[in-house]
Amino acid sequence: MKKPTILISNDDGIESDGIKALWREIKKFADVIVVAPHTQQSAVGHSITVANPIRVRKNIIDRDFYGYAVEGSPADSVKLAVRNLLKGRKIDLLLSGINHGANTAINIIYSGTVSAATEGTILGIPSIAVSLASFTYIDFSYAAKFTAEISKIVLKKGLPHGTLLNVNIPAKPKNKIKGVLITRQGKSYWDDKYESRIDPNKREYFWLTGRMASLDESLEFDQKAIEKDYITITPIQYDLTDYKMLDELKRWDFKL
Amino acid sequence: MKKPTILISNDDGIESDGIKALWREIKKFADVIVVAPHTQQSAVGHSITVANPIRVRKNIIDRDFYGYAVEGSPADSVKLAVRNLLKGRKIDLLLSGINHGANTAINIIYSGTVSAATEGTILGIPSIAVSLASFTYIDFSYAAKFTAEISKIVLKKGLPHGTLLNVNIPAKPKNKIKGVLITRQGKSYWDDKYESRIDPNKREYFWLTGRMASLDESLEFDQKAIEKDYITITPIQYDLTDYKMLDELKRWDFKL
Repeated sequence: MKKPTILISNDDGIESDGIKALWREIKKFADVIVVAPHTQQSAVGHSITVANPIRVRKNIIDRDFYGYAVEGSPADSVKLAVRNLLKGRKIDLLLSGINHGANTAINIIYSGTVSAATEGTILGIPSIAVSLASFTYIDFSYAAKFTAEISKIVLKKGLPHGTLLNVNIPAKPKNKIKGVLITRQGKSYWDDKYESRIDPNKREYFWLTGRMASLDESLEFDQKAIEKDYITITPIQYDLTDYKMLDELKRWDFKL
Repeated sequence: MKKPTILISNDDGIESDGIKALWREIKKFADVIVVAPHTQQSAVGHSITVANPIRVRKNIIDRDFYGYAVEGSPADSVKLAVRNLLKGRKIDLLLSGINHGANTAINIIYSGTVSAATEGTILGIPSIAVSLASFTYIDFSYAAKFTAEISKIVLKKGLPHGTLLNVNIPAKPKNKIKGVLITRQGKSYWDDKYESRIDPNKREYFWLTGRMASLDESLEFDQKAIEKDYITITPIQYDLTDYKMLDELKRWDFKL
């Protein structure tokens, strides 16, 4: 079988441990191209750079690893890779990650990791976003191995146009992980606040602080499942229409 | 009846014409608070600032108009307004806009205008994103009047938790607008490319260029309807789960 070509991006930046761990595992069976943001881009959502130019540099990260470092967002990186840098080369799969920290529930809409995979999907490439559910756990090796396995399945089966997979992996060794669940996006909210501080020049500034409060009732939802040490796979799409509300609104009396 | 309290934000920045036109119309029946990005934030998606502090200044824009200018994204502005600046004051409605340029079809996921309204919805406030379908037409007056009317309807009826309205208004005088349609998010893609240039220091840089190609077959979809001079009202939600794919995925053989 011909080796597949896999594009890897992320939102933690091209020098992050998660992308390197993923690259090490995926290059065992694929030709890998890395195009990722130059610096940390967490919580950028589906941002793209339209009002400014973008620059690109080649970064050598490991002895045989180099990639394109894009001075932009995750979605910029994927768009620029596909539309220019790769000069029309066919990409069989896009992987975004491995992110440090879960992307579940409401966080999906803020996630740069998911947005890179969404951009891949928009561009017609089967795409998977992968996150390790910890900001501190540093062993990405099992997460990378699992991503390799799911990649092989998706390469074989494909994904419907407009659907991507959002995968979260517990920050545990393999023998502590309970299984794999197909999940829905959980329900949650951020119980956040802005802490006000005064800088040395007596000007006020604000830091966002807070924690996510989960409202999930069952393992059917990604946030609850990851908390209970399951790998979660959530199929994601980007038609935001609220179909339940369409008929209701048609009965409202909107006039010119 | 007690005057409603309406929070206005946008993504074109606090000094844009669209937000001023909206403010002028809405203050006729409501107490209005403006909290908006300091500068143009188009295509930022649902970006929030987590790794840096945020600063705020009060801007006086018109003789009796002042607002908070936030050095951050549209979602930052709304979050900071609700979580800190407004000190717990109850907001009856959030309006985001009026944006210069339509937010339809695939553009919805890149839109800062929609993301401000989404953040309002997440925070439990009935929210409406409003865009004028032109980058050049400068008369926001009818769009502002229509937004006032739809605001009154939503103030009366409310919106289900988790649903916002995305409104697009043709860049035409009222007598050229054909009516109001309740629509779905259209199908489209960006036929874009990156134009490579060389700066005076001989370094390469890229500009994103291109046009959106619409795939909508009927007026049921927002992009087609706005092109045909209808006001479009699309109900939006942010559960991205692809429900059609859930059962299919459960039959795939994912192993630890």
